Amino acid sequence: MRNINGERLWASLEALGRIGAYQDEGSGLTGVRRLALTAEDGEGRRHVVEQMKAAGLAVTVDRIGNVYGRRAGREDALEPVMSGSHLDSVATAGRFDGCLGVLGALEVVKTLNDEGTVTRRPLVVAFFSEEEGARFGTDMLGSAVATGRLSLETAYGLTDRAGKTVKDELSAIGFLGEGAELLPAPHAYVECHIEQGPLLKAAGMDVGVVTGVQAISWMELTLTGKSAHAGTTPMELRVDPGVVASRIQLHLREMVRSGRYGGDLRATMGVTRFEPGLVNVVPNKVVATVDLRHPFDAVLKRAEAELHRFFEAAAAEEKVTLAWRQTARTPDVSFSARVQEAVAAAAQARGLKHQRIVSGAGHDCQELARLCRAGMVFIPGEYDGISHNPREYSTPKQCTDGVNVLCDVLVALADE
Amino acid sequence: MRNINGERLWASLEALGRIGAYQDEGSGLTGVRRLALTAEDGEGRRHVVEQMKAAGLAVTVDRIGNVYGRRAGREDALEPVMSGSHLDSVATAGRFDGCLGVLGALEVVKTLNDEGTVTRRPLVVAFFSEEEGARFGTDMLGSAVATGRLSLETAYGLTDRAGKTVKDELSAIGFLGEGAELLPAPHAYVECHIEQGPLLKAAGMDVGVVTGVQAISWMELTLTGKSAHAGTTPMELRVDPGVVASRIQLHLREMVRSGRYGGDLRATMGVTRFEPGLVNVVPNKVVATVDLRHPFDAVLKRAEAELHRFFEAAAAEEKVTLAWRQTARTPDVSFSARVQEAVAAAAQARGLKHQRIVSGAGHDCQELARLCRAGMVFIPGEYDGISHNPREYSTPKQCTDGVNVLCDVLVALADE
Repeated sequence: MRNINGERLWASLEALGRIGAYQDEGSGLTGVRRLALTAEDGEGRRHVVEQMKAAGLAVTVDRIGNVYGRRAGREDALEPVMSGSHLDSVATAGRFDGCLGVLGALEVVKTLNDEGTVTRRPLVVAFFSEEEGARFGTDMLGSAVATGRLSLETAYGLTDRAGKTVKDELSAIGFLGEGAELLPAPHAYVECHIEQGPLLKAAGMDVGVVTGVQAISWMELTLTGKSAHAGTTPMELRVDPGVVASRIQLHLREMVRSGRYGGDLRATMGVTRFEPGLVNVVPNKVVATVDLRHPFDAVLKRAEAELHRFFEAAAAEEKVTLAWRQTARTPDVSFSARVQEAVAAAAQARGLKHQRIVSGAGHDCQELARLCRAGMVFIPGEYDGISHNPREYSTPKQCTDGVNVLCDVLVALADE
Repeated sequence: MRNINGERLWASLEALGRIGAYQDEGSGLTGVRRLALTAEDGEGRRHVVEQMKAAGLAVTVDRIGNVYGRRAGREDALEPVMSGSHLDSVATAGRFDGCLGVLGALEVVKTLNDEGTVTRRPLVVAFFSEEEGARFGTDMLGSAVATGRLSLETAYGLTDRAGKTVKDELSAIGFLGEGAELLPAPHAYVECHIEQGPLLKAAGMDVGVVTGVQAISWMELTLTGKSAHAGTTPMELRVDPGVVASRIQLHLREMVRSGRYGGDLRATMGVTRFEPGLVNVVPNKVVATVDLRHPFDAVLKRAEAELHRFFEAAAAEEKVTLAWRQTARTPDVSFSARVQEAVAAAAQARGLKHQRIVSGAGHDCQELARLCRAGMVFIPGEYDGISHNPREYSTPKQCTDGVNVLCDVLVALADE
């Protein structure tokens, strides 16, 4: 049985984590801030490109800044097997999100190099631009362009809060490449990633066999009432949009608890913003957001329909004016059964505890799934799987287990 | 029957309203922005001081910037009868709040001047510094210092958001006076003011006989939970402080609707601030405020006790950490029965519809009520009595009616 070098993998995660490191005020921990296409991201990219070259990979950069490092196969004209993730982070990140997938794939290449193994098909290690969407507002940006969901022109024109464009910032960090942005379909794509949730750890699992990504619906509500003096306005004359937001918040939970949508509905109100937001003024406007997810699109649609009816009913009862818009909507994505079987078989052979799991978060893999057989290997996270936070942590053993499974799957697919 | 000059009063309201006028973006209306001790407030003060002097008043300024314009009485050694209010405004104000009380008292003096009437006691027209608390955070600042509730040193040291002190800003606008800040008890104090609520208008009243100011309790809650990914964290593992805020919001209304505290309980959640405030993150912290009021302190105390129990219970059920602090607490204030009778008698004699009313908002008069017999005349406001808003409006007739009643009451008290 082939084993990757867990110590080398861990050292590479630590080295990359020092790029863009910052001191987190709240926790006192060292976190990572490597927002897409910033100087820190540029430094992280160059660091990984050097390692790719040192491992003998032929590196190309495409016009949206996606980077591909190619290792030749025995039959080099066959479609390659691809593996990777992203290097960009949110503003308050840890060292694992995305990085594990890129450095894990690179570790697989190093392992094969060490033993002199050449697979039948070429292997490609990839990292995609702005997966987080934390700077330019659109997540999976690089992989969406590579797979044709988003046009290069649209992507180039996106701006950050300071008005800087994706194109200019790619150029500024030296990653506005010349490679065609539309990716020819690989034979398969496999991504190793931290779960970013508590399930695997709670169930005592070593590895998650990811069946797909759940369907996601984001809504932004603008509730308009009537600003009024808290001391002088009788309750029956008030038109308080805050009450509607609170009723929706509690209804979200009731929808989940009722079991009407099975046990997998997730519903979150992440924002409520009261205007004018003064202790002694009934707000005249409340902006609130809803994040609703379910593994099955048809079930999510039913939940959305119930929620929309509730929006209307609560607003009408409170005489509040309701406007809402869909800010994001993606159907569920199913990963390849072949890749799932390969992941489960590898875990089984290694004696690793594993279970099927639906990804709650979005990943580059869901974009690649439109192009080829695609799938993911999840590893558990400590501290309830906290992520997008400096406390994000998976142990060296968890990382090694995940990348060993990734290695087995990549070699199996590359020898097909 | 003596009548004030309504047209002159209205013109003086319009003239003062032009000082600090601004264009309100939302409504397109012209509003007033004359925050305490700003250049605009200085200009408004000088404008009124000139009118006081033109009306023959002897003007003095005390060390907290309160301004007193004295008209001699026939027995000039007797305690004076005082009337006034404030000139400072919130950032988005109308032309009536406070100004009506100051310009109304001045109009009474002008009317007496016109007919050559001298009252037995002196009359003093007053305006007090920073009634709104909108700049330095403490409302009724000038009148609280004048009546000894707040020390001059404490008041001087208060700062605005830019760190500027009350003392420096008084000096900057030329109103750091030399008069002793502690006011010798006048014979009586009467203030005319807009209701800032919908009741008088809805009841078809011309004038309100104010019985006092209700008890007020402000609380700020900090609810701490656990930040979590909206897509990956099962509902049963969440610790969501937003849910506690929503439960409190709805419980506030239930407390009012239940009738447990009679019909006069007012309860408002004016602020909820979610952190980090992202669509796909369960908040880890929510700051929320509660404004609770009742005409009777003992009843308010009972309502507070219920609410505090609910805070604890809801936080415990949701496993959220609760911290809350009292940010303001004033007991109810009862106005003088003698002044209430005088107001009612004057309205009656003029054929004006009038009713007893409790003030929902705080006023300088509640400070003066600790020092002497004090009371207020309310007039109705249009548009549900909206205030602290450019739409704030009372008609010329409503203003004239109120100041006519004020005039009758001042003369009656000044002839005692």
